Amino acid sequence: MTRAHNFSAGPAALPLSVLERAQRELLDYGGSGMSIMEQSHRGAVYDAVHNRAIANLRELLTIPDGYQVLFMQGGARGQFAMVPMNLLRRGTTAHYVDTGTWSAHALAEARRRGSAESIWSSADDGYQHVPTAVDVPSDSAYLHITSNNTVVGSQIHARLDGGDVPVVVDMSSDILSQPIDVTQYGVIYAGAQKNMGPSGVTLVVVRDDLLERSDDNLPETMHYGKVAAKNSMLNTPPTFAIYLVGLVLEHLKELGGLEAVAATNAHKAELIYRTIDSSAGFYTGCVQPAARSRMNVTFRSPSADLDKEFVSQAADAGLIGLKGHRSVGGLRASIYNAVPLESVRVLVEFLEEFKRTRG
Amino acid sequence: MTRAHNFSAGPAALPLSVLERAQRELLDYGGSGMSIMEQSHRGAVYDAVHNRAIANLRELLTIPDGYQVLFMQGGARGQFAMVPMNLLRRGTTAHYVDTGTWSAHALAEARRRGSAESIWSSADDGYQHVPTAVDVPSDSAYLHITSNNTVVGSQIHARLDGGDVPVVVDMSSDILSQPIDVTQYGVIYAGAQKNMGPSGVTLVVVRDDLLERSDDNLPETMHYGKVAAKNSMLNTPPTFAIYLVGLVLEHLKELGGLEAVAATNAHKAELIYRTIDSSAGFYTGCVQPAARSRMNVTFRSPSADLDKEFVSQAADAGLIGLKGHRSVGGLRASIYNAVPLESVRVLVEFLEEFKRTRG
Repeated sequence: MTRAHNFSAGPAALPLSVLERAQRELLDYGGSGMSIMEQSHRGAVYDAVHNRAIANLRELLTIPDGYQVLFMQGGARGQFAMVPMNLLRRGTTAHYVDTGTWSAHALAEARRRGSAESIWSSADDGYQHVPTAVDVPSDSAYLHITSNNTVVGSQIHARLDGGDVPVVVDMSSDILSQPIDVTQYGVIYAGAQKNMGPSGVTLVVVRDDLLERSDDNLPETMHYGKVAAKNSMLNTPPTFAIYLVGLVLEHLKELGGLEAVAATNAHKAELIYRTIDSSAGFYTGCVQPAARSRMNVTFRSPSADLDKEFVSQAADAGLIGLKGHRSVGGLRASIYNAVPLESVRVLVEFLEEFKRTRG
Repeated sequence: MTRAHNFSAGPAALPLSVLERAQRELLDYGGSGMSIMEQSHRGAVYDAVHNRAIANLRELLTIPDGYQVLFMQGGARGQFAMVPMNLLRRGTTAHYVDTGTWSAHALAEARRRGSAESIWSSADDGYQHVPTAVDVPSDSAYLHITSNNTVVGSQIHARLDGGDVPVVVDMSSDILSQPIDVTQYGVIYAGAQKNMGPSGVTLVVVRDDLLERSDDNLPETMHYGKVAAKNSMLNTPPTFAIYLVGLVLEHLKELGGLEAVAATNAHKAELIYRTIDSSAGFYTGCVQPAARSRMNVTFRSPSADLDKEFVSQAADAGLIGLKGHRSVGGLRASIYNAVPLESVRVLVEFLEEFKRTRG
């Protein structure tokens, strides 16, 4: 088998060693004579997998006491609704930082539920920049930010301080890509399918005091406090997806944790951005340099026709998923944790060669 | 590897051939050089998997035009909330048939959202019987039933007619176990983890006219009409879980479809119930014979201590998951589609032997 160089935006590449282990264990987990996906979620075998994944998340992300770690379903888009369901009480207003498509969707979803306002937006320049600071009313229900924007290819690199207002962050596309300070946040949520595992499981990290806010009449499976009280076993969790997240976490620990992972990610991004910037204008980046994402590198060739040719020739060469998001066009290389440095080197060579023949 | 005889109530046994195929394909789906779980949900490779699963569901369950087939997240428990969110308009009342723990939970969840009443209940006799007919007010928002009750081990065998009132059925634990007449129902929902696949994906089959009822302000990912309009790709679906459901569906077709599957299931249940009934009172069934489930066979030995010994000795003999639900105790053999006849034969021998030595 020739392994593809997978630059998909999500679902995305997973570590080969994780897939190999999952393959080995698929028919018989730990000598049980059953697949992990055939195990009762109430049994000791799955219970250990579940709790080890949570413990490893706590360790890798340095999640302190006073925060709950939840596995939920429905993706980040589900959380666009569940955050206001849980945190936005009647008579209060939530504030959103609008740095891209997903921020705007999150705000629209909050408005279906209650009062929510955009407090900062770069929509006017096509989301080419991100804030370095924002001013949030002290009586805000919460401040919502999107740490990395997959569509336009930007990332918030500054710490946005909410003061006493809890900061809620959609970290779907850069979680586990670098160390973070969890204590900055009231809620961190992330779909798994970029840096954590397969689609179908959503991580929610929530500060204990915020669990008090949820109305008892929320649907049980969407009530942070009730899910936390049952250690994410209020109903049957997506057991196989959580098992795979657990394998990814163990792999990240073997790599040396998030400091090591972040260094590799920075190097991967630097290699591509340098190629773009030294292309004498053949390639242009889509966002301001200070806003560039280390996860989703967006750029364009001189024309939409050449972009199309680029994607097609790249696919022929085994480089997959380089088409920009359908809403913005252009080109995009998503280089999450599991995209190997070697794949990035192959991409850089391809970028050089394409420019040489078409420039 | 010795494969366990898996009688778990869910997550439950999967067909061995499905697991073997998933294992073979795990690193390289269809020569793509990527796992199916690494494929973009917007790409042609996953798209084919997604649509083939839907087409096979339509074929196996004989789902006619005029019904949508949705893949959602959150399990049946999520649907306990989403059904009233979508179908229970203010000023109307929904009616529930209470045949067990999950029916009662579904009703409680509906009451968090609006007006809902129990129209029939066997709670007074510990859910030992099921209705053969119910009387539902003609202005009811919907009639909710639970076709099979995993905890107590009962199954509704009669057709419960709602007249013009749409019947909503939680079919989590007997879907695909026998042919059904979809046109009896307004909505069919089912978590996958008993007869369809791994946990983490929920099937919803909904009649077109009911899609009109949902309020535009529902969370997008929970709005039946909006999910249907995007063919369950409104957000990233649980792609690997849906792929596995697809493999299970192809397996069921190879077995000859649901008529053949139902015949085997009836035979499996008959073998165990006959052993219980011919045990001269050593084993007793937990529900009235007319209410017995073909999916979850519940019974007791002469004492709670012997039940405990039974579970322990069975596990030593490679028979897993025979403990009754923690809320009712006793013993339970869940014999979903993927539990082989051979496992049932081994269980019957074990039942005989345990009675011989302890009777």
